[in-house]
Amino acid sequence: MNPLRCRIAILGFGTVGSAVARRLTGPHAPLGLELTHIFDRRAHEKSEGWPAASRLTWTTRIDEVLASDADVVVETVGGIEPAADWIRAALAAGKSVVTANKHVVARHGAALLTLAERQGRQLRFEAAVGGAMPIVRAVGDGLAGDRITRIVAILNGTTNAVLSRMEVTGCSLGDAVDDARARGYAEADPGVDLDGVDAAAKLSILCALAFGLRVDPDTIPTRTAASITPADFDHARRNGGTIRQLAHAEYDHATSTLTAWVAPTVVPRGSIFSRAMGPQNAAVISSAHCGEITITGAGAGGDATAVAILSDVIAVARDRAAIVPAPVLHANFQLLNSEFAVAEAV
Amino acid sequence: MNPLRCRIAILGFGTVGSAVARRLTGPHAPLGLELTHIFDRRAHEKSEGWPAASRLTWTTRIDEVLASDADVVVETVGGIEPAADWIRAALAAGKSVVTANKHVVARHGAALLTLAERQGRQLRFEAAVGGAMPIVRAVGDGLAGDRITRIVAILNGTTNAVLSRMEVTGCSLGDAVDDARARGYAEADPGVDLDGVDAAAKLSILCALAFGLRVDPDTIPTRTAASITPADFDHARRNGGTIRQLAHAEYDHATSTLTAWVAPTVVPRGSIFSRAMGPQNAAVISSAHCGEITITGAGAGGDATAVAILSDVIAVARDRAAIVPAPVLHANFQLLNSEFAVAEAV
Repeated sequence: MNPLRCRIAILGFGTVGSAVARRLTGPHAPLGLELTHIFDRRAHEKSEGWPAASRLTWTTRIDEVLASDADVVVETVGGIEPAADWIRAALAAGKSVVTANKHVVARHGAALLTLAERQGRQLRFEAAVGGAMPIVRAVGDGLAGDRITRIVAILNGTTNAVLSRMEVTGCSLGDAVDDARARGYAEADPGVDLDGVDAAAKLSILCALAFGLRVDPDTIPTRTAASITPADFDHARRNGGTIRQLAHAEYDHATSTLTAWVAPTVVPRGSIFSRAMGPQNAAVISSAHCGEITITGAGAGGDATAVAILSDVIAVARDRAAIVPAPVLHANFQLLNSEFAVAEAV
Repeated sequence: MNPLRCRIAILGFGTVGSAVARRLTGPHAPLGLELTHIFDRRAHEKSEGWPAASRLTWTTRIDEVLASDADVVVETVGGIEPAADWIRAALAAGKSVVTANKHVVARHGAALLTLAERQGRQLRFEAAVGGAMPIVRAVGDGLAGDRITRIVAILNGTTNAVLSRMEVTGCSLGDAVDDARARGYAEADPGVDLDGVDAAAKLSILCALAFGLRVDPDTIPTRTAASITPADFDHARRNGGTIRQLAHAEYDHATSTLTAWVAPTVVPRGSIFSRAMGPQNAAVISSAHCGEITITGAGAGGDATAVAILSDVIAVARDRAAIVPAPVLHANFQLLNSEFAVAEAV
């Protein structure tokens, strides 16, 4: 059996769902991944203009997906219900699930992971936090052998696009929001982004991965970035910094005390956070044994989210075939053009 | 069965092996991981002063490890032979293997992965590249759903400690090497570090993960950093930069052309590379669909390497029990101390 042979159903054909579908049917689609079902309430309308494929079924009925031969369900519906119900039903039907849904994972992650484990299936959610920045793997897996003590991060690409635009142009928040909308970095209503609700859900997920804590995202204090003015940026600049929305979580293992918040914060000029421009995300992870790990990457947009989703689908496909998670090496390598960087080497 | 129940044998009790042993027997040892065997040619001598434990066997005989009930063999011997032979033998004996050995993985990774797959066991090597910086997972797993086009990275902590020391103090390379030795960042002979041989082996591993290429590390052109002088730094400084040893790999998918090299390079002031001080590693990964991902972290030292090894051991332990690779969430959370960053919030 091909280690990457996997039938995929997508729930929800919006920005992210359609980006995943394009990748799965495009010229460089990952080998062995086959898009077999697209579920959307407006499937009839949305399927128009999409290339017909004999193996692809558009449907408005979730039970058709659940009863299908799809191996993996990719959930890009958003919102808590009915998305959480559909994830439960997919796991119960013996399918692995890949989701971008931070709200479902933040609130129901523990129960859904338990269900997935009982079913012998996987639930993966790299796309729920940090867009294409692989922080879920870094925190939950790559640093599993350390004791993480603190995570400070920019986790909302929309707010970062707005604040970095205000910094560079001196414009008002309203103008920066309009600019972010025009570039596709903001929804019509960026309230949950600016208010910190989106980042709080993501921070809750990171607290589960990093500290083993179950944190209701509603209990994480937030301060809105919606009231930031150009004068605030002037003030920050005079103090050698700029303003970013930070999500902060620090855990004192000795006293079992968590400090967590999301707020617009003055960050020093030259720091990894001040350098995050546009919809970038960035994180500094501190741990007991290896100091600080930093990671940055595109935090918003359908393409970046689709990368995280496809990486999770590939991980599921590899696991299904009991293949180790390292890639197959090809023998058709040709070193045609090896050279020094003549212009830069010293 | 406890999802993290795993018996561990360590091959080689040097800097890294002893760091792993200390973590496994220390006060915050990961639950369920049990150190059962330590193999070292000087086991009798090295076991003195180590706390006696009823379940821990010190041995000078590799066959005793192979015939034991250890689930995972951690290889920290270094060098190609006999380390590669022992990894083969461990896989053949039905054990999973976690290795920090970049030279073995760069030269024999494909064959060893095939063997591991046939045996239904895992071969993991996060510690072989980038120390505690989880770049193996980021490239091989987290970005598997993208098409990586380029990796530019600082992959040798020793050389970075030497060059960043020269930059800051204006000292000679010899003095900087002495300083790195005194701080434990350099071996007695840092030749393979400065010459780029170490970084070339790591770059070869990343080429396999990122591009699916099998690249003999000996074919990667290198230029030594051993001849860098304070005058070179002055020159770089006048041009707005500083000097770092970079490993560079760029793959043109359309023409199947790889450009790869390791060389001391002028990097712009303020760049992620110029900001890497001491034994830090840093990488910029460019891809077709999500732009640039950056990652930094401690690149040298027994503790950082032990984190990468233990993270791999935990991944094996989770997989053995068919548990999804996400953590168990605890219910004993107390939000005792939630607060805004009063001093910094605006």
